[in-house]
Amino acid sequence: MNFASDNWAGAAAPIARMLAEQSGNFVPAYGEAEIDRQVSQRFCELFERDVAVLTVPTGTAANSLALALAMKPGGIALAHAESHIIADECGAAEFMMGGGGRVQAIGGADGKIAAEALAGHLKRFDPPFLHHGRAVALSLTQATEAGTVYTTGEIAALAAQARLLGLAVHMDGARFANALAHLSVSAADMTWRAGVDMLSFGATKNGCWCAEALILFDPALREAAEYLRKRSGHLFSKARFVSLQLAAYLDGGLWLDLARHANAMADRLRDGVSASDKARLAWKSQANEVFIIIDRPTEGRLRTAGAMFYDWHRPHWLSAAPADDEIICRLVTSFATTPQEVDRFVELIG
Amino acid sequence: MNFASDNWAGAAAPIARMLAEQSGNFVPAYGEAEIDRQVSQRFCELFERDVAVLTVPTGTAANSLALALAMKPGGIALAHAESHIIADECGAAEFMMGGGGRVQAIGGADGKIAAEALAGHLKRFDPPFLHHGRAVALSLTQATEAGTVYTTGEIAALAAQARLLGLAVHMDGARFANALAHLSVSAADMTWRAGVDMLSFGATKNGCWCAEALILFDPALREAAEYLRKRSGHLFSKARFVSLQLAAYLDGGLWLDLARHANAMADRLRDGVSASDKARLAWKSQANEVFIIIDRPTEGRLRTAGAMFYDWHRPHWLSAAPADDEIICRLVTSFATTPQEVDRFVELIG
Amino acid sequence: MNFASDNWAGAAAPIARMLAEQSGNFVPAYGEAEIDRQVSQRFCELFERDVAVLTVPTGTAANSLALALAMKPGGIALAHAESHIIADECGAAEFMMGGGGRVQAIGGADGKIAAEALAGHLKRFDPPFLHHGRAVALSLTQATEAGTVYTTGEIAALAAQARLLGLAVHMDGARFANALAHLSVSAADMTWRAGVDMLSFGATKNGCWCAEALILFDPALREAAEYLRKRSGHLFSKARFVSLQLAAYLDGGLWLDLARHANAMADRLRDGVSASDKARLAWKSQANEVFIIIDRPTEGRLRTAGAMFYDWHRPHWLSAAPADDEIICRLVTSFATTPQEVDRFVELIG
Amino acid sequence: MNFASDNWAGAAAPIARMLAEQSGNFVPAYGEAEIDRQVSQRFCELFERDVAVLTVPTGTAANSLALALAMKPGGIALAHAESHIIADECGAAEFMMGGGGRVQAIGGADGKIAAEALAGHLKRFDPPFLHHGRAVALSLTQATEAGTVYTTGEIAALAAQARLLGLAVHMDGARFANALAHLSVSAADMTWRAGVDMLSFGATKNGCWCAEALILFDPALREAAEYLRKRSGHLFSKARFVSLQLAAYLDGGLWLDLARHANAMADRLRDGVSASDKARLAWKSQANEVFIIIDRPTEGRLRTAGAMFYDWHRPHWLSAAPADDEIICRLVTSFATTPQEVDRFVELIG
Repeated sequence: MNFASDNWAGAAAPIARMLAEQSGNFVPAYGEAEIDRQVSQRFCELFERDVAVLTVPTGTAANSLALALAMKPGGIALAHAESHIIADECGAAEFMMGGGGRVQAIGGADGKIAAEALAGHLKRFDPPFLHHGRAVALSLTQATEAGTVYTTGEIAALAAQARLLGLAVHMDGARFANALAHLSVSAADMTWRAGVDMLSFGATKNGCWCAEALILFDPALREAAEYLRKRSGHLFSKARFVSLQLAAYLDGGLWLDLARHANAMADRLRDGVSASDKARLAWKSQANEVFIIIDRPTEGRLRTAGAMFYDWHRPHWLSAAPADDEIICRLVTSFATTPQEVDRFVELIG
Repeated sequence: MNFASDNWAGAAAPIARMLAEQSGNFVPAYGEAEIDRQVSQRFCELFERDVAVLTVPTGTAANSLALALAMKPGGIALAHAESHIIADECGAAEFMMGGGGRVQAIGGADGKIAAEALAGHLKRFDPPFLHHGRAVALSLTQATEAGTVYTTGEIAALAAQARLLGLAVHMDGARFANALAHLSVSAADMTWRAGVDMLSFGATKNGCWCAEALILFDPALREAAEYLRKRSGHLFSKARFVSLQLAAYLDGGLWLDLARHANAMADRLRDGVSASDKARLAWKSQANEVFIIIDRPTEGRLRTAGAMFYDWHRPHWLSAAPADDEIICRLVTSFATTPQEVDRFVELIG
Repeated sequence: MNFASDNWAGAAAPIARMLAEQSGNFVPAYGEAEIDRQVSQRFCELFERDVAVLTVPTGTAANSLALALAMKPGGIALAHAESHIIADECGAAEFMMGGGGRVQAIGGADGKIAAEALAGHLKRFDPPFLHHGRAVALSLTQATEAGTVYTTGEIAALAAQARLLGLAVHMDGARFANALAHLSVSAADMTWRAGVDMLSFGATKNGCWCAEALILFDPALREAAEYLRKRSGHLFSKARFVSLQLAAYLDGGLWLDLARHANAMADRLRDGVSASDKARLAWKSQANEVFIIIDRPTEGRLRTAGAMFYDWHRPHWLSAAPADDEIICRLVTSFATTPQEVDRFVELIG
Repeated sequence: MNFASDNWAGAAAPIARMLAEQSGNFVPAYGEAEIDRQVSQRFCELFERDVAVLTVPTGTAANSLALALAMKPGGIALAHAESHIIADECGAAEFMMGGGGRVQAIGGADGKIAAEALAGHLKRFDPPFLHHGRAVALSLTQATEAGTVYTTGEIAALAAQARLLGLAVHMDGARFANALAHLSVSAADMTWRAGVDMLSFGATKNGCWCAEALILFDPALREAAEYLRKRSGHLFSKARFVSLQLAAYLDGGLWLDLARHANAMADRLRDGVSASDKARLAWKSQANEVFIIIDRPTEGRLRTAGAMFYDWHRPHWLSAAPADDEIICRLVTSFATTPQEVDRFVELIG
């Protein structure tokens, strides 16, 4: 019953197998090998257009490189107050943007930025006022840290607003596959067709060891991105070890299968919790993260039985606070979660 | 006959096997798993003292995090003009140091910093003069980019000079194992006992997929290092995939066996070249890099036969320039180089 | 009737005179002249202890250098949401802190940080959690951007909280003299005796051309501060031109006289507005900034008559919003404001 | 007999007078006043084209902002090894460039970059090679730190080379007036007509208190420059105090008169030294810096008599080293130097 995080799981078997099988031979380093080109090509097909693909070690690296690419003198990026970029990356975005780059927090229910809230923040930069700096990027998280998913319409509306002031639009897709599987739309529809310029494509949480890629829908940004990646120490020498993972990941739709499984396990959890009167959903999530409210005795029972999960803080949008003896818990499912684990957990809640 | 670089090789079999075998199960992310602790412990034994171990994605990350840890307002680091930090990391050291940190180049024969040259550079900072900035770190490369190896005495002498002005001493050990195997001393003797404070311990070039570690001989630096690593996007979530590689690498002395093999292949190359009158050593190297001078027809013959290697620039210390129709080539051997490849190469030279 | 800002005024006569009289002779550059030493000594007397004094070109430079001095890897500074550092310096704090430093906004009525709000923010960093970064500095503005003034007790309480987690405490004293004149306490009581470590001592707004100083109550920080100031381009060569201004400013209590005058003019404005039924105070300020709510016709009347002032945004703490046809205006008085201007303005309100 | 530096002098009388006369009244802050516009206009006339003018506190600020404007991901700037940017600004260029920007040193006789030396350095970036970074700017110092002056032809040749690889060309004009007065060409000919994109226009050393301006020959860079200036704390609030100095400085050709005087005093020194057999010129300079070689007894005699000047290091190009008992001295003349001082100094040499 491990619901601590999807990054506690290891590698899905086809990923591990690919690495084992391809560990020999000499191939060019630094992303110049045939497998690296193949993976780039595979992404072009997936996104139905020419894209630049830069593999990087971590989602944090992908996110912060993206914002760094959008950086201009005086630049400020905008993101949801609960976004990973703001809340859980120790300031990596500001670090990589450099030049005093700042990420400004926008509140919003269910971990999503509302169109009006974005408008309110943009007003501060329009007309331009030197002392305020200038907005250069909007970052959206899909699926959000609250386990919710923006519709393509919501993404398009936010991106259109951002575009009016010349902001670049970035999508933090640490759980891209889970969102895509939930919406059942194409990868192109959920990204560039909705106005997204740059995507952090996360694969680590969904079955790889270490496979993250920054996808640039404007390949003209590639040159700058490559310098940034190298200069920040994020260019692998034996880059094929990431490409091999991604090749296996994308092959035959494995990635969506893994995500669908994780989502289904989360649905099963949501259903179980909703049916119980000892627990309730803190809010309605959609992808592979489930947030529930339980009381302390229930928590104790679960932990004693070996369930792993994190206590969670009360987010700013949650008006109905948990009672004094209640806590919010985050439960994350993954490709490796089993129905048995879920059922046992629900059973323990009672 | 692939002598392009040791990072063109894949993963040694025991490394790949370890990853394949341990790809299942849930374990804590971000370096908090049992295997992460075991590897740290293994490094403490190797270095015969308490050390802080931070795994990172690349040698560039390790090097630049080390210099960042030594950074102070006004700080300047010193390194050999041909060091990877200065010549081949696209400015990563300056990027990570931040605050205007600069790496200043010191020349020196055979890729090594001479004690007098260091003294000359340090004079500029002693007594302190605001407008010059202040020296905060000395970085030594072991083995050097020229394939040479500092003796422990040379390291100790340089470190002692640096210490007088309060500089931290960093060792770029991208080819640490090759240097150690060549010198046949202990890891402790080649590092902290000689005055080294921080080590970039490279394992990728010597048989791992991706396994680099920053070793801090003063564990009090760990806290700052962890914030820097996270903030710069270099903290792996599924960190065990690096630890597993390192566990296999260090187990039973595999790492030194791999390095000894690479060095022996380089010795075989050096011997072959020395015996030929169609080629000569550009200078005398000691570890797994060999620099030779050949004429264009010989180069053509080698390349036609499928030999892979890089042309090399003439380093500043090389007073005897190659003739007009000659070139300098760099040949790198690795754990995967075979005696047959070497012999065939030598035979082709004629 | 110029209430636009205190930085629209020029230089007070004794300041201008001092510069004119001392424009000849050769004296050492870069702050090494006798006059520079005298001014430092004068500050030591004023603060009743040894302090390090670094003159800088702007208040923004002083503020951001202070935060940069407090910076550590992973560092985050805390300041009021309406502070100049966050709202009006274009991100200078983050720029100078470097290394991904971030200034996090704390809300609070009347432009002041409340003790409970600070406690709430600090909880996020205690116990330390790598992914959150670590808090390294608290910045208080005295007088605040809302024209209010912290009591020495309030400062001491906030500083004590910050100290518990090891934060440095900075005071943005762009209007230090106005606050001090209002409280009628000693400079020492309002700063280091209340727990302040670093002070941006502003003199430009209160009668100088260009005279700002970073005051360090721990002179051991001087060395780092000097490197930072030089490296960021803020060390004047003909530094005496600032010292001369400060000498005249501090001489015979001129600075407090100028501030008392500005405050008295603000009091006169507040009294006038309070007595009118065509305008009201938006909130109760205390130093030389006055925030009033008037309707559009009144505004038109004032502007037509030549009154200069800025429209102001509705701050987050203001629950009673202005009516639809009303606006908030900021009125700033200075050493150069005359009672006649104030009276005429009040008369125009009606 | 003060030859220590031109920044030891105070302000020329017309500059000081202008400040004293214009210290009253309210005018818009932050460079929005009428006088600020007039000075910009004056520069457009001087340079015979539309230029963007940004006043800044120091020459270091102007230089480093210029390089920051040229910065791109992976960027490296090139400058002479003895340039102020590399040798005497404590790393300010790297600080302001941010993002790991580096300034790479090019040697060259008499403080000037030779065309072949530049070509040699540029080869490293052409064709582009990720691991080397990319060259983004060339900075030339006019007059150089060695007191020499590039001809307009030399500037044009270097700029043309730089332009081929897309580098921006910056001129550090801390002693712009001295160079211009020496060459007797137009300001346009010595800058943009020769291929210069950005100029640090220094006035402080030549008779102002504090007046430096960054001149952008491509006004499209203004927006970025303004954000950078503000964010780095270099935007004055009472900006008119700089504009007033510049207005007086440029008025009626005062600036060139001051520079011609300083140059004439340097010529007088050079002549005196050349005629003596107790001293000799270390090399032939042209503007207001003179470098001489004297023996220790002569030095003692001069210092005893109250002469002020700095010992100087032996620059890398000086093949004929001073004898063991000799030293190199730097003598700087300024608008405030008198013929009597010069003559007395020469007389003391004997």
